[in-house]
Amino acid sequence: MVRVLRAAAAQMGPTQKADSREHTLHRMLRLLDEAAARGATLVVFPELAFTTFFPRWLIEGEALDQYCERSMPNPDVQPLFDRARALGVGFYVGYAELTAEGRRYNGSILVDRDGSILGRYRKVHLPGSVEPRANARYQQLEKRYFDYGDLGFPAFRAGPAWRDAIMGMMICNDRRWPESWRVLGLQGVELVCIGYNSAAYDPNGGSTEDASLRTFHSTLVTQANAYMNATWAIAVAKAGEEDGSGLIGGSCIVDPNGRIVAQAQTLADEVITADLDLDLCRQGKEKMFNFAAHRRPEQYAVITERAGVVEPAVLEDH
Amino acid sequence: MVRVLRAAAAQMGPTQKADSREHTLHRMLRLLDEAAARGATLVVFPELAFTTFFPRWLIEGEALDQYCERSMPNPDVQPLFDRARALGVGFYVGYAELTAEGRRYNGSILVDRDGSILGRYRKVHLPGSVEPRANARYQQLEKRYFDYGDLGFPAFRAGPAWRDAIMGMMICNDRRWPESWRVLGLQGVELVCIGYNSAAYDPNGGSTEDASLRTFHSTLVTQANAYMNATWAIAVAKAGEEDGSGLIGGSCIVDPNGRIVAQAQTLADEVITADLDLDLCRQGKEKMFNFAAHRRPEQYAVITERAGVVEPAVLEDH
Repeated sequence: MVRVLRAAAAQMGPTQKADSREHTLHRMLRLLDEAAARGATLVVFPELAFTTFFPRWLIEGEALDQYCERSMPNPDVQPLFDRARALGVGFYVGYAELTAEGRRYNGSILVDRDGSILGRYRKVHLPGSVEPRANARYQQLEKRYFDYGDLGFPAFRAGPAWRDAIMGMMICNDRRWPESWRVLGLQGVELVCIGYNSAAYDPNGGSTEDASLRTFHSTLVTQANAYMNATWAIAVAKAGEEDGSGLIGGSCIVDPNGRIVAQAQTLADEVITADLDLDLCRQGKEKMFNFAAHRRPEQYAVITERAGVVEPAVLEDH
Repeated sequence: MVRVLRAAAAQMGPTQKADSREHTLHRMLRLLDEAAARGATLVVFPELAFTTFFPRWLIEGEALDQYCERSMPNPDVQPLFDRARALGVGFYVGYAELTAEGRRYNGSILVDRDGSILGRYRKVHLPGSVEPRANARYQQLEKRYFDYGDLGFPAFRAGPAWRDAIMGMMICNDRRWPESWRVLGLQGVELVCIGYNSAAYDPNGGSTEDASLRTFHSTLVTQANAYMNATWAIAVAKAGEEDGSGLIGGSCIVDPNGRIVAQAQTLADEVITADLDLDLCRQGKEKMFNFAAHRRPEQYAVITERAGVVEPAVLEDH
């Protein structure tokens, strides 16, 4: 069996706070149509794709609910599911999940080509803070609005329509943490789907990192972690200026050698595609990164024993 | 205190099997002199710097001992220690260690500017095989010749002569494993020293990876893991054709943003230097990679629970 899968990254330009959900969904349908017309059978949308990146705002009480999905699918997003199924295209999409118990997660789903939900994921690595930063125009309140993901990093085995691919999901900041990738790698992952909304610069005026450096970071971690786990990766941005706060683009499709095979050139709605030969993962998985032969977990204990840094003592006399 | 340290990577060209130890040591002294003349106070030499990369050969019995150091320093290498101390320069060097009990390790040491040994390391991620590959001209027999390193990945706090830097060591293949970096990162490492001997292509005729791709891999993992742990890194090759078997170059000094600040341009003896501002690590360690705030070890259990891959089941009916 030739295990080639044509996939698309559907980068989205900015979504303003005032944009209607219908308008945003219409953009997503157009991206889906374009990807399908180019032969893709998998389309990866960004994190929190149906709305603006609302964690930059301090929002109290029930006003938050308008940004959340109480079930998936639901009437607001059903047209995306219907169109995808009609086209025979599956997709990854990120969204804010509100559970029946009132918990919120920064979540994603993987929807198969027949419209069934192949997998669910909830973001583990929430950045930002619980308390708003005083006197800041823009916040990063993911730690306030969301619970930490409680599903681990599960890998899912697709069916023949996706060449029996072993697939995994991350959301945004997860991609900067090699642990996310390794937990998927230890399940033999062949394709990692990632949506992100990453600040292009310090929105509150800091100047230590610019958009160029932040895009470099995003691309670098995707490339290296794909290589170190011998997997394909598709990383997809919501990009551009949302209500004056910039987001990087740089959506990319990366092969198991860590090479970029396609990359977005704009900060707007843009589809990129590539043919993913899943068997290109085999060389890495069988040789350099044959985990069973070469990993030494007995030397890694501290990785799971503690979260934070313990420095060696400063020498008194040297 | 301004925490700037001028460091050098002392890339070495090839060392043939027939080269005398004196000849090789003389080359190292010249590299040391050049680095010191350029103001470096730390010089990083490659893995197995005193000899050819002997694990490519099947060597039986006591013939192996000529490639090993029974103590460090010892009379064969004492001139390097003496010159370094006279110059006020410390160094990292890789070598094959033979213990009093007859065990062999692929080891390295970090020698302080006063000539004292600041730290010892033994390579954890041994590549290759125990049994020679039949009918192959070149072997990769590290798993045959060496025991797995049993010292973990210890970080060492230098004294004021190196700005109280927190330093760690890896050897070659270790750098491709994010676990190596994370164990050091969890000790607050600010500078990782790495020596390597990495094949430029399949020495036995395979053609899936060429020197360009293998150099890319080496540089990519150094950059990304430096960024993901907010540390400086110095990765140093033994490069060029050793008895017909090619080794990549690409020695580099990488900043805590993952950017290359200096890189070797040859496959020969070559010194590159850079000024390392250790406080550039702080932004990453305090914000994006504030491990105590953002890591979620409870989701990483599988990383230390098992070495190898367990794939999700193939779907029977989908």
